[in-house]
Amino acid sequence: MFEQQDPNLIQLNSAGQLKHFLTTEGLSREMLTEILDTADSFVDMSAQQVKKVPLLRGKTVVNLFFEASTRTASTFELAAKRLSADVLNLNIKTSSTSKGETLKDTLMTMEAMHSDMFVVRHSDSGAAHYIASNVTPHVAVINAGDGRHAHPTQAMLDMLTIRQHKGAFEPLTVAIVGDILHSRVARSQIHALRTLGAKEIRVIAPTTLLPRHIEALGVTVYTDMLQGLKDVDVVMMLRLQKERMQSALLPSESEFYNLYGLTEEKLKLTHPDSIVMHPGPINRGVEIETSVADGPKSMILKQVTNGIAVRMAVMSMAMGGQMTEHQAERGSE
Amino acid sequence: MFEQQDPNLIQLNSAGQLKHFLTTEGLSREMLTEILDTADSFVDMSAQQVKKVPLLRGKTVVNLFFEASTRTASTFELAAKRLSADVLNLNIKTSSTSKGETLKDTLMTMEAMHSDMFVVRHSDSGAAHYIASNVTPHVAVINAGDGRHAHPTQAMLDMLTIRQHKGAFEPLTVAIVGDILHSRVARSQIHALRTLGAKEIRVIAPTTLLPRHIEALGVTVYTDMLQGLKDVDVVMMLRLQKERMQSALLPSESEFYNLYGLTEEKLKLTHPDSIVMHPGPINRGVEIETSVADGPKSMILKQVTNGIAVRMAVMSMAMGGQMTEHQAERGSE
Amino acid sequence: MFEQQDPNLIQLNSAGQLKHFLTTEGLSREMLTEILDTADSFVDMSAQQVKKVPLLRGKTVVNLFFEASTRTASTFELAAKRLSADVLNLNIKTSSTSKGETLKDTLMTMEAMHSDMFVVRHSDSGAAHYIASNVTPHVAVINAGDGRHAHPTQAMLDMLTIRQHKGAFEPLTVAIVGDILHSRVARSQIHALRTLGAKEIRVIAPTTLLPRHIEALGVTVYTDMLQGLKDVDVVMMLRLQKERMQSALLPSESEFYNLYGLTEEKLKLTHPDSIVMHPGPINRGVEIETSVADGPKSMILKQVTNGIAVRMAVMSMAMGGQMTEHQAERGSE
Repeated sequence: MFEQQDPNLIQLNSAGQLKHFLTTEGLSREMLTEILDTADSFVDMSAQQVKKVPLLRGKTVVNLFFEASTRTASTFELAAKRLSADVLNLNIKTSSTSKGETLKDTLMTMEAMHSDMFVVRHSDSGAAHYIASNVTPHVAVINAGDGRHAHPTQAMLDMLTIRQHKGAFEPLTVAIVGDILHSRVARSQIHALRTLGAKEIRVIAPTTLLPRHIEALGVTVYTDMLQGLKDVDVVMMLRLQKERMQSALLPSESEFYNLYGLTEEKLKLTHPDSIVMHPGPINRGVEIETSVADGPKSMILKQVTNGIAVRMAVMSMAMGGQMTEHQAERGSE
Repeated sequence: MFEQQDPNLIQLNSAGQLKHFLTTEGLSREMLTEILDTADSFVDMSAQQVKKVPLLRGKTVVNLFFEASTRTASTFELAAKRLSADVLNLNIKTSSTSKGETLKDTLMTMEAMHSDMFVVRHSDSGAAHYIASNVTPHVAVINAGDGRHAHPTQAMLDMLTIRQHKGAFEPLTVAIVGDILHSRVARSQIHALRTLGAKEIRVIAPTTLLPRHIEALGVTVYTDMLQGLKDVDVVMMLRLQKERMQSALLPSESEFYNLYGLTEEKLKLTHPDSIVMHPGPINRGVEIETSVADGPKSMILKQVTNGIAVRMAVMSMAMGGQMTEHQAERGSE
Repeated sequence: MFEQQDPNLIQLNSAGQLKHFLTTEGLSREMLTEILDTADSFVDMSAQQVKKVPLLRGKTVVNLFFEASTRTASTFELAAKRLSADVLNLNIKTSSTSKGETLKDTLMTMEAMHSDMFVVRHSDSGAAHYIASNVTPHVAVINAGDGRHAHPTQAMLDMLTIRQHKGAFEPLTVAIVGDILHSRVARSQIHALRTLGAKEIRVIAPTTLLPRHIEALGVTVYTDMLQGLKDVDVVMMLRLQKERMQSALLPSESEFYNLYGLTEEKLKLTHPDSIVMHPGPINRGVEIETSVADGPKSMILKQVTNGIAVRMAVMSMAMGGQMTEHQAERGSE
């Protein structure tokens, strides 16, 4: 665990532009909307014959994955390459950097190679903040998931998917279902949905998988999924970490599916125009019925497509914010 | 194992152009010749100072290797990069995708990232066909070897090497020597040689390493290498999978070498202008005598060079065929 | 171990230009100065918005690391990408190439793929020479560290760092401290410092970590660090291989630190304007006190930055030398 600072002191430059992307918490509605608008333009570009723009040409992006995640690493690698960046993939086992000093040396070495951006996935909450604020402030840091804290690009690709299908956030009732307690995705989603003005945010989970004082985030808590899904416009399923199954926190896989799996039957309780989302990879028959995952309400593959666009958006915006700041610093010397 | 469809229904678009490259079986002589002609132009390009063409610029090629093969993966990676594509390497252990559904989800996720081409190596025969026909028909699929079924780019680089040295296929007698039973390369070679009009195709192997009914493919079978090599123009050695040695199918390594290894002595039985080929990596002193591998008849390194050119050819042709089809589909909407 | 030839017969073309970069030994002062001048121009380029030049566009650089080294491999990968080369990373376990013939086949295969440059790291002294002279003379070979023999790009980035801070080499007294016996870096540094005209080169180490006849290289030997550091302008620390600790060659870690670790206290013995260097990664509290590593005399991160520039310099120079030679060969045909 790392100590925290006000994220906006860190992730915005003096002109109020994004220079790191660490969390959705504390970012203004205007900033989240700018990210979504920029991402939309990259969605359009992806339909072109040549899916490549020179925005990060000659820049070096380092994928620093202290925790393995082929899928997330691939989307960031693709996003960086489509922005024409040079990409370096480093898979660093947490063990070899167990001492804070050694991690710091590794990062300062990467910075000294004139890296421009670090994409950081780490099992410790706050790792990306720590790096951005204490270690290499002149390198744009993109949080690709830190402990139980945040996974802001996942949350923003979800927001993009909702906006494409629902237009405005104000009239929406959104339900987040599953292991809220261990989910960095849920935290980032709640912050983004509140800022973007969603009418009601529900979390649906067994008591054992709910963080204490979760109501303080402005959500309504349901332990009964049948009640929680009633008339919702958006169902956001969370991925179930199978390793949690062995602990006492969770009932058996089949019991969990009965109570909190998204089935065709339960889906009938939602609004007729509702959509279903899941961050993937999905556990068919555990969190979600196969026919729901592949059905007309499912946005799962759309989310993947939007994931590239959102990552291109925050990468190009953060790089722009860093460059503006460097120029300002040079000008004031 | 996956069920099979007529390959030409899958690998050609409605205009008869290549849109996947799954097998040499069923492709017309004109199509095989077009592949060889295109490859020849890339051989010329490789002699230039700048070995790079923008044919796949802005396209995303994903190397999906469910079975490890550094050598084949490297040639495809190089071919894609010389075509200016963005390349993503994914090494997927078959174990993690043992359920068909999970493999399907992985592939559909990669497709949703706007991947344009999958290069697929898989231990199951028919895997590439299955993906191209059932999973992601809009992504160009290149078969980089599937089970015992096919290894069509290897066969085509062999054809390119033969044509460069012999000109026409019609007058040629070609011998394929070794473990025919387990070889995906042999199957692809036989289909290509027949279509291109080779006069006679001989297979030389011990009875235990011959598939049943192999004669139905239009080949002459020899179990005696001394008879089989007589006056042949081309000797195509197969790689011996050492792991087969332990099984009862094979005699000892030295006995195999005595009977089916290509030595200087045996080579004297072939036509004076004969050439020798091997897909590599070679087991010196097991399938082939060192002086033969390094001798003037050996085309082994030439095959490697041609391998890049053939892969560039089928990748650019299949991408062109996909794009033509997409435009046709849009036009008819 | 591989047999050695006069390195200059190998690493220079007939016009006297660099065509491989294998060792600093035997290279002229003019050549070393040209490398430093070229590297300086790349240092300037790295401060630009777009850190990319097209000098190696369309060229294929293969990273052949027979010995793992994430850090060195990363710097070469970045250097090659900033020169616009296509890069292929191959991690080859020494075990699979234990037979010389097999290594040779691997390399000739890579050459046949029209590779233009091999970056070679190998545990055997002389491996890079062997490849350049016997295996693939038309591929530019860059030595990224071979056994105990040489690590010439490390030595040249050290020379660049010294020149940036001290200007001329002639007035300098330089101390190299630590495990001289096992260090390929020390050998390369000594050759470069002598050729560039440093006034005095001292090596400081316990008797057990000094090669026999080291004085023949033109250095002064100190076993007492307090005496050896007196008035030196440059302190070059070596990395301590922790695995050596277990052998009888080394005292305990704390005893080594007491005798040969660089502390603030010992640093006071050096010239007031002295600088401190270390090839990294550093073992804080083993070879160097943390406050020294992070202090104003420390050049450690500067060395990392210069490492990219020096690698870009030798890569672009060796490629130029190869191309000149190829053209000369073609002209004389």
